[in-house]
Amino acid sequence: MATQYSLVQRLTAEAFGTAFLLAAVVGSGIMAKQLSAGNASLALLENSIATGAALIALILAFGPISGAHFNPAVTLADATQHGLNWRAVPGYIFAQCVGGIAGTYAAHLMFGQQVFQISVHTRSGASQLFSEFVASFGLLATIWGCSRVRMAAIPFAVGAYITSAYWFTASTSFANPAVTLARCLTNTFTGIRPKDAPGFVTMQVLGALAATVLFRWFSPAAPQAAEELLVPHSVSHPQDE
Amino acid sequence: MATQYSLVQRLTAEAFGTAFLLAAVVGSGIMAKQLSAGNASLALLENSIATGAALIALILAFGPISGAHFNPAVTLADATQHGLNWRAVPGYIFAQCVGGIAGTYAAHLMFGQQVFQISVHTRSGASQLFSEFVASFGLLATIWGCSRVRMAAIPFAVGAYITSAYWFTASTSFANPAVTLARCLTNTFTGIRPKDAPGFVTMQVLGALAATVLFRWFSPAAPQAAEELLVPHSVSHPQDE
Amino acid sequence: MATQYSLVQRLTAEAFGTAFLLAAVVGSGIMAKQLSAGNASLALLENSIATGAALIALILAFGPISGAHFNPAVTLADATQHGLNWRAVPGYIFAQCVGGIAGTYAAHLMFGQQVFQISVHTRSGASQLFSEFVASFGLLATIWGCSRVRMAAIPFAVGAYITSAYWFTASTSFANPAVTLARCLTNTFTGIRPKDAPGFVTMQVLGALAATVLFRWFSPAAPQAAEELLVPHSVSHPQDE
Amino acid sequence: MATQYSLVQRLTAEAFGTAFLLAAVVGSGIMAKQLSAGNASLALLENSIATGAALIALILAFGPISGAHFNPAVTLADATQHGLNWRAVPGYIFAQCVGGIAGTYAAHLMFGQQVFQISVHTRSGASQLFSEFVASFGLLATIWGCSRVRMAAIPFAVGAYITSAYWFTASTSFANPAVTLARCLTNTFTGIRPKDAPGFVTMQVLGALAATVLFRWFSPAAPQAAEELLVPHSVSHPQDE
Repeated sequence: MATQYSLVQRLTAEAFGTAFLLAAVVGSGIMAKQLSAGNASLALLENSIATGAALIALILAFGPISGAHFNPAVTLADATQHGLNWRAVPGYIFAQCVGGIAGTYAAHLMFGQQVFQISVHTRSGASQLFSEFVASFGLLATIWGCSRVRMAAIPFAVGAYITSAYWFTASTSFANPAVTLARCLTNTFTGIRPKDAPGFVTMQVLGALAATVLFRWFSPAAPQAAEELLVPHSVSHPQDE
Repeated sequence: MATQYSLVQRLTAEAFGTAFLLAAVVGSGIMAKQLSAGNASLALLENSIATGAALIALILAFGPISGAHFNPAVTLADATQHGLNWRAVPGYIFAQCVGGIAGTYAAHLMFGQQVFQISVHTRSGASQLFSEFVASFGLLATIWGCSRVRMAAIPFAVGAYITSAYWFTASTSFANPAVTLARCLTNTFTGIRPKDAPGFVTMQVLGALAATVLFRWFSPAAPQAAEELLVPHSVSHPQDE
Repeated sequence: MATQYSLVQRLTAEAFGTAFLLAAVVGSGIMAKQLSAGNASLALLENSIATGAALIALILAFGPISGAHFNPAVTLADATQHGLNWRAVPGYIFAQCVGGIAGTYAAHLMFGQQVFQISVHTRSGASQLFSEFVASFGLLATIWGCSRVRMAAIPFAVGAYITSAYWFTASTSFANPAVTLARCLTNTFTGIRPKDAPGFVTMQVLGALAATVLFRWFSPAAPQAAEELLVPHSVSHPQDE
Repeated sequence: MATQYSLVQRLTAEAFGTAFLLAAVVGSGIMAKQLSAGNASLALLENSIATGAALIALILAFGPISGAHFNPAVTLADATQHGLNWRAVPGYIFAQCVGGIAGTYAAHLMFGQQVFQISVHTRSGASQLFSEFVASFGLLATIWGCSRVRMAAIPFAVGAYITSAYWFTASTSFANPAVTLARCLTNTFTGIRPKDAPGFVTMQVLGALAATVLFRWFSPAAPQAAEELLVPHSVSHPQDE
């Protein structure tokens, strides 16, 4: 009774999911900064809660269709474990990037801002880069750690992790190349200077791969888990939850 | 061993649930504004947390009886997928509207305010309208996305989604025609001018239907899911959770 | 393979659980007020989050032993539905009251305060009393609503409900006679004047019974659910979660 | 089909998990204090949310491998119940301490601080010591209470408990000897003077053992639960969640 979604459907799910993720990140950043009158601490608290809560809802909603990666680093890591077919990887990453940009623009429209922007927010230096490595390592550790026996907990684990990582990394934990790209295109609370993006993306991919290696060592049978990561909690086990 | 609730019982559940939802939205808005001494950011954080948390409890509590729609846009979307019989739709919407108004008045009574009020809070313009479209699209995407294989997660998904959507939409995410109507009748933190309500409601219904079309395309077999949406997590599978 | 706990064990669980609940309510109130320098809004946010989170942990921990009522109104409501034997009711209520007082005193000790105090915090008037009725009605609705098919969700539903109800009721939702009694004995952020307690307790019991009547009408077969309320999620179904 | 992880793998999991826990505690403390401009209440709220959320993700991720103790007091308590073999205890504690220190240093690196620091933050006196006893008693009560029938809820129970205990104890609830040791090595928001550590650790161990005795009395069959605590929610029941 396994239901397979077509690649077009899965890419559509990735695009919509990543769009909502970016709308949540960028939009809540705009709202929080507008209301907080210079209280950056309160603004970041609101931004981090809104992002984590959005992730819970979005991964629950789109996970059964596409795996709800919303993140090229997750897609690459999954492909190295033979979860996602390498031929699907470019499509996934393209959908995530396009979706992320669309979501950023949607946030601008919702808040009556100019659609096209370029960030001038500097986020550079060794501390920021190391932060992105740690943030992405932790994100993939969370995903791989849950992927074998607690698949249904992934949405909550990832949402909780990202809310936390906003605070314990100096970079506020982008941990996602598609998010990084899209945040170059908003000159608001959550933006990042395009010049700083390549370093962020590099560290994100390295962090993700390092965690993948660690969990491959923990569980040599990872490929099967990787496959489930693609379609977590599949309908073949409707009784799972 | 399937238990069927009568229509009267289901409408009663919708009325009580929507009443508590509005009591939570309006009441927490009053309390938050009273205590926050002009800090609108903190007040909205409290309002959004209280609303999301209330949704978790209320959908868990009333979901087994009526499906816990509390929202005419959800009821309409469910009916288009043959989940709810069209003949039950007017009753559902009526119960939601009456319940919502009663909950708003209950909040006024709890805070020692005049019961009958009309909001003068302007919420208009293209950004606000687009926000309501996005908010409702996302809400229905969350519900439909969970409705096939993660029924038990819907209360948490919806609660998390709404907490987040308060922040990432310029309108603070009403996403619900019954809520919109009821919030016309309170001139407090969460009110909306009656004049602005029709635009909000229109966009909410359009957003809800757009998400329904998308998820129908994802899963042509949606009608069965729609039926479960009516009585999620039914007693025929008591071991599910 | 059903495990039955003795009455002494169940009363001990009620006492310890209620003690921790009060330590959380009173202690977090003291800490929040000390740190918040007059920002009552932030203090209440912290108090409400700490209380809701404590309830999640405590109901999960003690629920399998005693049902984790921690609340005479819940115990009475359960007894009316033949869930808890009436002969156990006095013991339950006594254990809850003793535990609640002990937890309040433990909070005083943890914060270096005088152990014995009497609150002078006025909480009276029709709005406050109506708030307690609503708060307790909603609490029991949440519990009864979950008790038939979503037993495992009760800890999360109750924790979320109380966090929300702190904000949407003018009384900050005591909703619990044992909590009311114990809070008479602390002259800190969360205290209540002994003189105001009887009115609170009366409305709490009435609200609890009203919700019980409503859900009895929804589900005439409630007694069986009531029995499970005593030992939710019993070990006879170890695979449930 | 039971999968056994080797001791080296389990110790590695404990080290990585505790490292991330400390990175979260110390890192979020630094970020929160930097942004909060003297608002200690808001900073502690952020610190407590970040820590609780991190625990949810980390216990979900590493629990299936090592049991996700991250805490010598938990490891000792588990060994007294014959859950963890005594021969594994020194390794577990060593891995937790090394991981905790590494995580603290990683937080320093992420925030561009000097790696090696010694705290001068005084945390002493009877109130603080009693707080640590209560905090650890409650933590172990939460764990043992969930360990028989609600294994899958432990990550959420522990995360919620610690977020709450930050607020209801005067010591902000260290409740963990490895955390205490590591926090001696950071002179930031979350530090503790080395001189004060032995008292904290002593009370943590006593509190943990007291709760273990209580729950042993509740459930004489605890050893089996203790064994599961080592590898909670094992792969032999993949359908559990």
